[in-house]
Amino acid sequence: GSVGLTETKYYTLSGPFRTDSGRELAGVRVAYETYGELNASKDNALLVIHALTGDAHAAGVHSPDDPRSGWWDPMIGPGKAIDTDRYFVVSTNNLGGCSGTTGPASIDPASGRPFGTDFPVVTVEDTVRLQKALLDELGVRRLRSVIGGSMAGMQTLEWGLRYSDFCDSVIPVAGAARLTPMGIAWDKIARSAIMADADWREGVYNSDGGPRKGLSVARMIAHITYLSGPIMWEKFGRRVRDEGELLNEITARFEVESYLDHQGEKFVDRFDANSYLYLSRMMDLYDASAGHPNLEAALDRLRTKCMLICFISDWLFPPHCSIEIAEALRKLGREVELHNIESTYGHDAFLVQIDPLTRVV
Amino acid sequence: GSVGLTETKYYTLSGPFRTDSGRELAGVRVAYETYGELNASKDNALLVIHALTGDAHAAGVHSPDDPRSGWWDPMIGPGKAIDTDRYFVVSTNNLGGCSGTTGPASIDPASGRPFGTDFPVVTVEDTVRLQKALLDELGVRRLRSVIGGSMAGMQTLEWGLRYSDFCDSVIPVAGAARLTPMGIAWDKIARSAIMADADWREGVYNSDGGPRKGLSVARMIAHITYLSGPIMWEKFGRRVRDEGELLNEITARFEVESYLDHQGEKFVDRFDANSYLYLSRMMDLYDASAGHPNLEAALDRLRTKCMLICFISDWLFPPHCSIEIAEALRKLGREVELHNIESTYGHDAFLVQIDPLTRVV
Repeated sequence: GSVGLTETKYYTLSGPFRTDSGRELAGVRVAYETYGELNASKDNALLVIHALTGDAHAAGVHSPDDPRSGWWDPMIGPGKAIDTDRYFVVSTNNLGGCSGTTGPASIDPASGRPFGTDFPVVTVEDTVRLQKALLDELGVRRLRSVIGGSMAGMQTLEWGLRYSDFCDSVIPVAGAARLTPMGIAWDKIARSAIMADADWREGVYNSDGGPRKGLSVARMIAHITYLSGPIMWEKFGRRVRDEGELLNEITARFEVESYLDHQGEKFVDRFDANSYLYLSRMMDLYDASAGHPNLEAALDRLRTKCMLICFISDWLFPPHCSIEIAEALRKLGREVELHNIESTYGHDAFLVQIDPLTRVV
Repeated sequence: GSVGLTETKYYTLSGPFRTDSGRELAGVRVAYETYGELNASKDNALLVIHALTGDAHAAGVHSPDDPRSGWWDPMIGPGKAIDTDRYFVVSTNNLGGCSGTTGPASIDPASGRPFGTDFPVVTVEDTVRLQKALLDELGVRRLRSVIGGSMAGMQTLEWGLRYSDFCDSVIPVAGAARLTPMGIAWDKIARSAIMADADWREGVYNSDGGPRKGLSVARMIAHITYLSGPIMWEKFGRRVRDEGELLNEITARFEVESYLDHQGEKFVDRFDANSYLYLSRMMDLYDASAGHPNLEAALDRLRTKCMLICFISDWLFPPHCSIEIAEALRKLGREVELHNIESTYGHDAFLVQIDPLTRVV
């Protein structure tokens, strides 16, 4: 059951978009895809949100010979967990990204040059408001659910807090009400690696140049935080790539090193370093409890049904991050389900553990 | 009970030192300190080994107004766990380091310039053989024990395997018979960060220059692997350093970011980037089971008593690394003790959990 050929579409806001940081952005553009049909009463819509470096292309292929289908294709399609025979599925690209939605690589109308680090700090809340603007434009009157993993799990929770009247349920997957200090630390080190690269040039670089080595290091760090100790033994163990060279060359590699080099190289071809700074910062900043005496008080605004999914071996968004949300909602008497799924895949589980995800969703 | 004033001494080998990689190094120098007195029968010696970036200065102070005592001062001294009233304690700096023992920053006699990446790959086994040469020079006939944490825990284990006739016991602390794939991955990313820095220049740089930014990133990565999720909540939480700036400046920092910047800056003033490449690689390479059908077969050579100490929250050298050694030794009928100490300090516990360490040692 594939949704088949899909295309990324674009919507440009007519008015200015005001960020939480108080800046006004003119001509903000949103990249999105849709799968399935909006019904006559326009209330069968479902919002799917991508993680840190994803894009709007969540399902199907962009051409008949496209070797790569959307990032959550096993989850989205006719008869799948997110059933496009029943739902009108909307997938959007995050504000601050580099895959079609306005971000630091976009041209600043004021200067005629890319924003770079003149781009405003943007938040999970900003992104959610922008998603709402898109849904309004598409004529959606009601969401059956919002679902997303990792930072998108934060956005999903924020949907429940901000637009409880607009959606029936939210499904934060491997999400959190706030990132752990260790998560902030990894993001900070990734940003330091990017900014340490002489080619970063304070964020002013050409799209074909930029801090490729620093961005590659940032990506390597992220990749390890997405895995787990056990899955790394299984995938790589202590196997050697450059057999016979380890005692001769300081750069000879174990298999896991070769994997990291490959991931780093692939990433710098598709992602903008400044976007990485902004999106990782967005993840650090989110705190659903901010401005409230505690998380329970903060979650009082959430009136939708809530299904939380987490994975036992995830140490970037550890199960306790979902559990604390579930416990607070239970105390408030809300309708909440928690699924702590057994997996050795770590944080990556939300992308690969399709069977249990399909079962619970 | 302080050992008082101490000084770092140096011993230069008269003959060439042949590395496991097959290279011959001329004039290898070893930095070391000693505390306590060698007895008449020269059999009351105890070897203390430092971790990745430590040095020979393990106890006491170098001058009356020295603000910083040796790295394991709370453990070493009269009446302490490592009792200098009873033992002659020897502490040496690792081969490949930059704190007195020959390493990549040393002058290559062949070229008159620093070795840089012409330095041979060096191993845990090389370091242990060099330590043995020093002890021979000092007239030591027998070691009562060898003790060291982290990579020094590997060296300590190797002492038991290689020189069982020379020592009564070995005490690997937070050690392993082999680094996990995740450990290799962090080391690889650290090396990539160093080599990504334009100032690394393929390892040819002045001692006052060098890849300071890259080395700082490497150190930040290491620091997080030395901590644990719970201790980071306790030490930093989500507290903000640059209050009021987080929504305005992409570089405004949480407390944990400020901590990382500080650790990175401190480190680059005292450590050589090329040494970091070599020592992290030394840690990756060690595998006590190499060349044997399994770990148990490999450990058959160990005839000393063995006390293994690990810490529950350590995820860089996780408890299972010590447990697998203990289990293999038990199957072999060896005298082995395992202490899995409760702690939230992560890998750092071997430096800070002095009370439980003192108790078991």
